Amino acid sequence: MLPAVIAPSILSANFAKLGEEVDNVLAAGADWVHFDVMDNHYVPNLTIGPLVCEALRAHGVTAPIDVHLMVEPVDRIVPDFAKAGASIISFHPEASRHVHRTIQLIQSHGCQAGLVLNPGTPTEVLDYVLEDIDLVLLMSVNPGFGGQAFIPSTLDKLRKVRAMIDATGKPIRLEVDGGVNADNIGAIAAAGADAFVAGSAIFREPRTREAYADSIARMRQAVGAAR
Amino acid sequence: MLPAVIAPSILSANFAKLGEEVDNVLAAGADWVHFDVMDNHYVPNLTIGPLVCEALRAHGVTAPIDVHLMVEPVDRIVPDFAKAGASIISFHPEASRHVHRTIQLIQSHGCQAGLVLNPGTPTEVLDYVLEDIDLVLLMSVNPGFGGQAFIPSTLDKLRKVRAMIDATGKPIRLEVDGGVNADNIGAIAAAGADAFVAGSAIFREPRTREAYADSIARMRQAVGAAR
Amino acid sequence: MLPAVIAPSILSANFAKLGEEVDNVLAAGADWVHFDVMDNHYVPNLTIGPLVCEALRAHGVTAPIDVHLMVEPVDRIVPDFAKAGASIISFHPEASRHVHRTIQLIQSHGCQAGLVLNPGTPTEVLDYVLEDIDLVLLMSVNPGFGGQAFIPSTLDKLRKVRAMIDATGKPIRLEVDGGVNADNIGAIAAAGADAFVAGSAIFREPRTREAYADSIARMRQAVGAAR
Amino acid sequence: MLPAVIAPSILSANFAKLGEEVDNVLAAGADWVHFDVMDNHYVPNLTIGPLVCEALRAHGVTAPIDVHLMVEPVDRIVPDFAKAGASIISFHPEASRHVHRTIQLIQSHGCQAGLVLNPGTPTEVLDYVLEDIDLVLLMSVNPGFGGQAFIPSTLDKLRKVRAMIDATGKPIRLEVDGGVNADNIGAIAAAGADAFVAGSAIFREPRTREAYADSIARMRQAVGAAR
Amino acid sequence: MLPAVIAPSILSANFAKLGEEVDNVLAAGADWVHFDVMDNHYVPNLTIGPLVCEALRAHGVTAPIDVHLMVEPVDRIVPDFAKAGASIISFHPEASRHVHRTIQLIQSHGCQAGLVLNPGTPTEVLDYVLEDIDLVLLMSVNPGFGGQAFIPSTLDKLRKVRAMIDATGKPIRLEVDGGVNADNIGAIAAAGADAFVAGSAIFREPRTREAYADSIARMRQAVGAAR
Amino acid sequence: MLPAVIAPSILSANFAKLGEEVDNVLAAGADWVHFDVMDNHYVPNLTIGPLVCEALRAHGVTAPIDVHLMVEPVDRIVPDFAKAGASIISFHPEASRHVHRTIQLIQSHGCQAGLVLNPGTPTEVLDYVLEDIDLVLLMSVNPGFGGQAFIPSTLDKLRKVRAMIDATGKPIRLEVDGGVNADNIGAIAAAGADAFVAGSAIFREPRTREAYADSIARMRQAVGAAR
Repeated sequence: MLPAVIAPSILSANFAKLGEEVDNVLAAGADWVHFDVMDNHYVPNLTIGPLVCEALRAHGVTAPIDVHLMVEPVDRIVPDFAKAGASIISFHPEASRHVHRTIQLIQSHGCQAGLVLNPGTPTEVLDYVLEDIDLVLLMSVNPGFGGQAFIPSTLDKLRKVRAMIDATGKPIRLEVDGGVNADNIGAIAAAGADAFVAGSAIFREPRTREAYADSIARMRQAVGAAR
Repeated sequence: MLPAVIAPSILSANFAKLGEEVDNVLAAGADWVHFDVMDNHYVPNLTIGPLVCEALRAHGVTAPIDVHLMVEPVDRIVPDFAKAGASIISFHPEASRHVHRTIQLIQSHGCQAGLVLNPGTPTEVLDYVLEDIDLVLLMSVNPGFGGQAFIPSTLDKLRKVRAMIDATGKPIRLEVDGGVNADNIGAIAAAGADAFVAGSAIFREPRTREAYADSIARMRQAVGAAR
Repeated sequence: MLPAVIAPSILSANFAKLGEEVDNVLAAGADWVHFDVMDNHYVPNLTIGPLVCEALRAHGVTAPIDVHLMVEPVDRIVPDFAKAGASIISFHPEASRHVHRTIQLIQSHGCQAGLVLNPGTPTEVLDYVLEDIDLVLLMSVNPGFGGQAFIPSTLDKLRKVRAMIDATGKPIRLEVDGGVNADNIGAIAAAGADAFVAGSAIFREPRTREAYADSIARMRQAVGAAR
Repeated sequence: MLPAVIAPSILSANFAKLGEEVDNVLAAGADWVHFDVMDNHYVPNLTIGPLVCEALRAHGVTAPIDVHLMVEPVDRIVPDFAKAGASIISFHPEASRHVHRTIQLIQSHGCQAGLVLNPGTPTEVLDYVLEDIDLVLLMSVNPGFGGQAFIPSTLDKLRKVRAMIDATGKPIRLEVDGGVNADNIGAIAAAGADAFVAGSAIFREPRTREAYADSIARMRQAVGAAR
Repeated sequence: MLPAVIAPSILSANFAKLGEEVDNVLAAGADWVHFDVMDNHYVPNLTIGPLVCEALRAHGVTAPIDVHLMVEPVDRIVPDFAKAGASIISFHPEASRHVHRTIQLIQSHGCQAGLVLNPGTPTEVLDYVLEDIDLVLLMSVNPGFGGQAFIPSTLDKLRKVRAMIDATGKPIRLEVDGGVNADNIGAIAAAGADAFVAGSAIFREPRTREAYADSIARMRQAVGAAR
Repeated sequence: MLPAVIAPSILSANFAKLGEEVDNVLAAGADWVHFDVMDNHYVPNLTIGPLVCEALRAHGVTAPIDVHLMVEPVDRIVPDFAKAGASIISFHPEASRHVHRTIQLIQSHGCQAGLVLNPGTPTEVLDYVLEDIDLVLLMSVNPGFGGQAFIPSTLDKLRKVRAMIDATGKPIRLEVDGGVNADNIGAIAAAGADAFVAGSAIFREPRTREAYADSIARMRQAVGAAR
């Protein structure tokens, strides 16, 4: 099994001093920077684009940047994010008419490719592309809004996709995003996830490196106990 | 005539320390914060949304935030920006089926409303709404891309719209955005503009408060000489 | 000048007994039945379609049915309304890529064709099609919502379009829709309108034929006095 | 098993006297009022919207109103129908990018939520949302057109979805719409349906309460015999 | 099992003398003319439409014309191709909201109907329509681009769909398109395909009838050996 | 005044032997090859794309190829046509959100740029871009359909645009397309056109070089007499 990764979502960071926030959370033990892109079309919200990603790289961030595209269509913006320093680019299969080709496109730009499943999306969308991708991201809330609670049926879906991944024999990541916190992360890990996005569970008051370290440590401990 | 305002576009700022950049440029004499929103649909780029605007207000910015929506459609995101602290919200008439209603919507949320004309857009779109708005923004480059040069025919268009505004007898702002710098701002002011967006002409190396102050002072001087 | 027509909008009628309502308002002196079609795309509301128009004809209504399409795109639904008994079909030029062709389409199905201008739409859209159409409808509120007040600048626009129509020498109707009532209809007629849509100013309590007749009579009197 | 419900589709009623038609069909023994909403985008037809629903409630209808949205997108119109008095709101999963969220939206407005499957739609769309919904509606004709015959393969699909519902142990309705009549309703009930939409099989000449009662009684008898 | 058919894709022919090219390839032993239609929306390319199909029929082509629609939406153009002489019309289920109805539409115009699955499309889309169609086309490259290599996982998908077709007991064609050549066609046939599209593997220099005959003969031989 | 050019539209040629048809019409005296591109979105028809243009160049055609894009959006396909050998690329301003930028894009690929006005499009769309373009094309029928008659009001529009062009002092072409033939081409030339598209008036039986030469000669003579 792949080592667990904690990926704080910078949507919950303070955008007035984003470089410092990301430095702190990485120093506090975070593995990846999770980067949520919304276009006001695929979801009813607009967040941040390639120039913010580029600014983080220019600021000196070297950790993997894990870009979750909540945009439709997908293909045009892929090269922009690759050029801006993205490490992983994930997208929703409903948002691309040509899922296999979008995966090829992401990988041809030197990034890892992921598919994201909404809470209601059936797992059949993975049937003919799972072996080609690097990551599956299961949404445990509906994307585009903050402050939602983890949807419990995600645990069943995690177990199903875990089995599908294991059957491939390939090192494909299984990530979860939505309502993840120190209380439920153990159960989520036990169900098969190995990458964990957390927003307000990490980026919260008092917004210090120490507080971030504490939150991440408790998450990592719960994950370790569960595996 | 309204006093001239200089509105630095934060797209050219350093997004890793945006609060500090905005503090510096305001301390250096800038009047407004110009905020460019792109949605990857109306223009082929995606920039920043309401949460970045909100972060600036939380950081303590009290200057007017001048939001230029390069999005389509327009209406859904208007309340989000009003709530996030926008002072002025401008949009492209081509991007809204109901221009008069979108103006009402912006004003009903307590913001000032502006219309933006692309380089090729005829001025007739202003005929039946000019008296209802607070600002006209003329694009002197094509929106959605950086690094373009000022399109000279904008000067004629400025003179025409200046005359239309004067005929109303109302204090409607006339703003210009695109390729504005200390060398051409005098001619732009002479043609009738009273609000000036500048990006890389202000936010440039060495990126200090003093350098910003110097750039802004030279612009303001050229404007003063021209009016 | 064409004789004035009063066109009650059935959106304000009681839909549980629409046949009776329409019978009453026509017996009360109304000239046309105004029929507002919204598709939840061109405007954010959905109202009634061809089957309701057809039901009115089957019920015995012989008065002109004046269909205002707030739909986008336009062409597909035109034959449906022609078959359902529409007399006049009007549409918004912004909602059809090929305005001249849509006019031809409506007329080829045996209906009269009209163009509708939103409050913010410039009159230049009429320049090369005015002689081909049978009716111009000026919106004096923004379409898609109820309960709005008449926008005063419509009077100037009426005078401009009146002059354009007179210059053609053709019997083209000039209709107004939005916030029309007995108090302002005189000024509207004086500005050049000859067809008047009214909703809640006619279809209101006590919803009797006598009350409708009274409302219509007062409108017609004000129009007569103004011309 | 839930008691069977008969839901006459008012698209086949006489729209000139809709209140009377609905009163009659309910007095004749109908359980629900089925309300078909088409927007000329998801299907090539436009029918009736919230204001007609509201008129039925104002007229005194207290029976459940079962709204079938053939519209795309779905979310904007949901609150309008909830406010207009809808009891159940069903939609097509293809018409919403965020199926789970649309279900939440409908329920948060106090209505029951249903999913509608077109004849060609696979049942996998139910996999991760079935337990969250109140009703599954299987189309046995293609939506958007009248006068089609029942597609026989619907019976197999009914059996499959019946088993899926039974496996949840929850009281989820299984409804069928399209070409249902007294001759085939027994077989449809035997395959697992417990809610039956019928249009022209009920609303037909001589359009009297007695005739409606007779049609409904024969349907109910056939259903009873089959269960 | 149905006899194998070879269907040269005319996108690889010389469009300056298309009639002669098609005559030659048919004289060289081709069974069908494969006709790829792209609309610059469903795929990022635009190729040829009904008037080219019509020109081939007028030129005297009597072989089946096998039209692959890479367009979205589908329905409007179906009658145009039927009238232009198409024999088979295939489309992508993602491109039609009403897959079952589009199949009916194609067949009602006297053509055979096919469904096309992209490399990433799951086979569940066939579950409730397979018995209604005449052909399944599996894409073994991503549509809309030339010069791609055959995707090996297509062989598994062929075997799965072959089994689904055999289970129906109906003479439904199983066609493959993308990177097919004399080297891999045997394995493709062995996996269950019985119709083979080939572009540059047939239409290549020296572009003579003899060369075409040689290519087709080698393909046919490999297919024969594999079945 | 620029010398007149005759531009036969190859939509009326025989597509089974397009190279020969184009050779013949050029040998017969035609100046340009007019190339009509329809995408089944901007107009309800789909014709021919870049690969046909490329085939003509490969066939040896060296005359200017005058591409009229009836597509929406415009920008993506521009480089494809430039690469395929187009000389002039014209588009409809309604089909591009950024008209000035699309003009720049076409010219940056080494082609001349034109704007096309539908019969109902007002001339104001030219106000701020006329000096930047190489050609104005006025449609004298509605695009997307064959067999329509020349719309007489085009003559007035020609005179107006002729004056606008003359005022620039630049060598901007004024082209007409739709229902042009030897009988009306004189009046069209007299109104100011200097480029003339003709389809069935040239490509007609007996489809010989001599017949084409005769048609073109008669047109040229009428034009000469009118100027």
